[in-house]
Amino acid sequence: MLVKKYKDMLSGKSVIRQLSEFATARGQEIGYDNVFDYSLGNPSVPVPEELTDRLIELARLDTQTVHGYSPSLGITDVREAVAASLEKRFGLPYRKEHIFMASGAAGALAHAFRLVTEPGDEILTFAPFFPEYHPYVDLTGAVLKVVPPDTESFQINFEKFYEMLTEKVMAVLVNTPNNPSGVVYSAETLTKLANILREKSAEYGHTIYLISDEPYREIVFEGKEAPCVSAFYDDTIMCYSFSKALSLPGERIGYVAINPRCPDAELMVNMCGQISRGIGHNCPASLFQLVIAQMLDKTADLSVYETNRDILYRELTDMGFTCVKPGGTFYIFPKAMEEDAKIFCRKATKYDLILVPGDTFGAPGYFRMAYCIDTEKVKRSIEPLRRFVREEYGV
Amino acid sequence: MLVKKYKDMLSGKSVIRQLSEFATARGQEIGYDNVFDYSLGNPSVPVPEELTDRLIELARLDTQTVHGYSPSLGITDVREAVAASLEKRFGLPYRKEHIFMASGAAGALAHAFRLVTEPGDEILTFAPFFPEYHPYVDLTGAVLKVVPPDTESFQINFEKFYEMLTEKVMAVLVNTPNNPSGVVYSAETLTKLANILREKSAEYGHTIYLISDEPYREIVFEGKEAPCVSAFYDDTIMCYSFSKALSLPGERIGYVAINPRCPDAELMVNMCGQISRGIGHNCPASLFQLVIAQMLDKTADLSVYETNRDILYRELTDMGFTCVKPGGTFYIFPKAMEEDAKIFCRKATKYDLILVPGDTFGAPGYFRMAYCIDTEKVKRSIEPLRRFVREEYGV
Repeated sequence: MLVKKYKDMLSGKSVIRQLSEFATARGQEIGYDNVFDYSLGNPSVPVPEELTDRLIELARLDTQTVHGYSPSLGITDVREAVAASLEKRFGLPYRKEHIFMASGAAGALAHAFRLVTEPGDEILTFAPFFPEYHPYVDLTGAVLKVVPPDTESFQINFEKFYEMLTEKVMAVLVNTPNNPSGVVYSAETLTKLANILREKSAEYGHTIYLISDEPYREIVFEGKEAPCVSAFYDDTIMCYSFSKALSLPGERIGYVAINPRCPDAELMVNMCGQISRGIGHNCPASLFQLVIAQMLDKTADLSVYETNRDILYRELTDMGFTCVKPGGTFYIFPKAMEEDAKIFCRKATKYDLILVPGDTFGAPGYFRMAYCIDTEKVKRSIEPLRRFVREEYGV
Repeated sequence: MLVKKYKDMLSGKSVIRQLSEFATARGQEIGYDNVFDYSLGNPSVPVPEELTDRLIELARLDTQTVHGYSPSLGITDVREAVAASLEKRFGLPYRKEHIFMASGAAGALAHAFRLVTEPGDEILTFAPFFPEYHPYVDLTGAVLKVVPPDTESFQINFEKFYEMLTEKVMAVLVNTPNNPSGVVYSAETLTKLANILREKSAEYGHTIYLISDEPYREIVFEGKEAPCVSAFYDDTIMCYSFSKALSLPGERIGYVAINPRCPDAELMVNMCGQISRGIGHNCPASLFQLVIAQMLDKTADLSVYETNRDILYRELTDMGFTCVKPGGTFYIFPKAMEEDAKIFCRKATKYDLILVPGDTFGAPGYFRMAYCIDTEKVKRSIEPLRRFVREEYGV
């Protein structure tokens, strides 16, 4: 008999995926150039040329070096290189013993959740949040609970958080820079969060782990750096992906880095190797482990995202939208011009504007635009956006 | 709190891994050339030159084509190519709708088990068997039960199988060509197996699925083909890996192919996409999907494995070992010269011979040699093997 829970999931299709399919279908009618598809967070900039060069050099080396089995925690030299890069950048004493190579952030999170939760345990996250967290967590048997947003700033709604942080909570999951808001958690936010976690860990007599999902860490604007979550709280499990920084989301390469100050850091990395056996993970592709080891402190040319952010933020606020200014990522999350963002986004499709309602992200009344598209297209979308709000909302 | 089941697993180290570590350590003392390491099934032949050429060509194409997100079931053209190749080779009407791209056989099996078992359900497999099946299955919550071997032929012990095939069994897992015995299941074996599965599915009122783990499908000797498991039974879930045929085990590339004659084939492929969300799988690397699509009917030069088989089978039987002749893979599984194969293998290490006791594979009293090593080394190992059996067992 086929397993019901997976069969049932097929009827609940992702809103983002549906919108993206609509955009593709509409593109076939009127030309994809004429569809302003802000639905998908698919990086648009090319991988660095240097990455391609390294990849080709490596491909020519001998088979066992390049294509052989990786040790179960990842290739040792690669783990060492990742640790050295993290130490240099964030000033925490990372060693290879703290690093587990994973298949992108999704693979890293799959290990993190299983490390610290049994079925029935709770994980808290903060709206607005990446909707895939639900299947990621729910299918482990743990329970994801979502703290409502602080819509003023899209930092953390601490009042609600404090209320929801019961004894059943084993982990708190943060995503900064944030998908979908584009907001970067401030040092103040992270300090307050860490203090509460320490207080409640002591009160409940068990560690509440902080799981930090950081695929957008390198996409921060105005030359700033996102404050490093691990630096604020010892029991942090960093989940990283190279997808966004190096523009290779299809290659599924990332890592888990356990804070070296976490008392069980080495044990936890070894446990990740055991978790892998149960979920068929068995390491990311060896070739891409070797490639990223040579590209650790480099990124694709990410400047287009800031250019797009500047245009959209200026134009949207000028049109009358309320909007927190994104500090990073390639997302912006304005307030819709009517209460029901689903209706708002449906109306937008008449203007070939593909926007995603915030309901999906736990923030009804808002909508997400993924501006990882050509700047030229962003510019061309301003006229239909203006027409949309004028004709539908008289502004 | 860290999850106990994963922590506990760390104390139960894999026997194969321990032996391999011993071989490495001994190699540092006396030179690895002088250690006859038959412990690990790590392919030794290079990838085809053509594969490297295709890989380099693809790496030069544009980023979104090569490194972009793969659709959740795999790249459509790749699924189509895999289906066409399977149809041509096995005469079953495979279409892309029957194919789900997976991260090697381990990734494929992780999906297969979750498709058809709930926690508490049973999966049967046949000794001798690949020991990783235990964590693969046990960590899903299902229960793996092992049918004792037919030591005459290492085909299936049907008497025991019939006894153990109760109503709780939701799937039967086969691995042919087999690790560790090297035996290829005959058409007769597969016919009998399929008949029993049909009979019992009808009797119990639920489909008993056949999960076929086929990473060694291309390594068959004397110009033969392994009988295609799916051709014998409609409800077969084929799990394939390119690791062995193309010598790229580290790149984690394979697929699930549901038998087109299975009534729920398309549904099951879609369900695999949902299972992925829960285990952080999210497709194998895009680049390697594209690479293997161009290499589907090709293999590395696998002839060395047959050469090695010939030498070892001839010499081992000449030394007095009882041994079923391997029809494929790069394993041979002779009977040890004393009852406890663990003691036998421990004694062998004195001669720098690294052999793996059969207990690990559910067949005590036997031992495995993985002969995916240079022929020159196989030849050099004959003298110490002869010395070992003469000095220790007087033969």
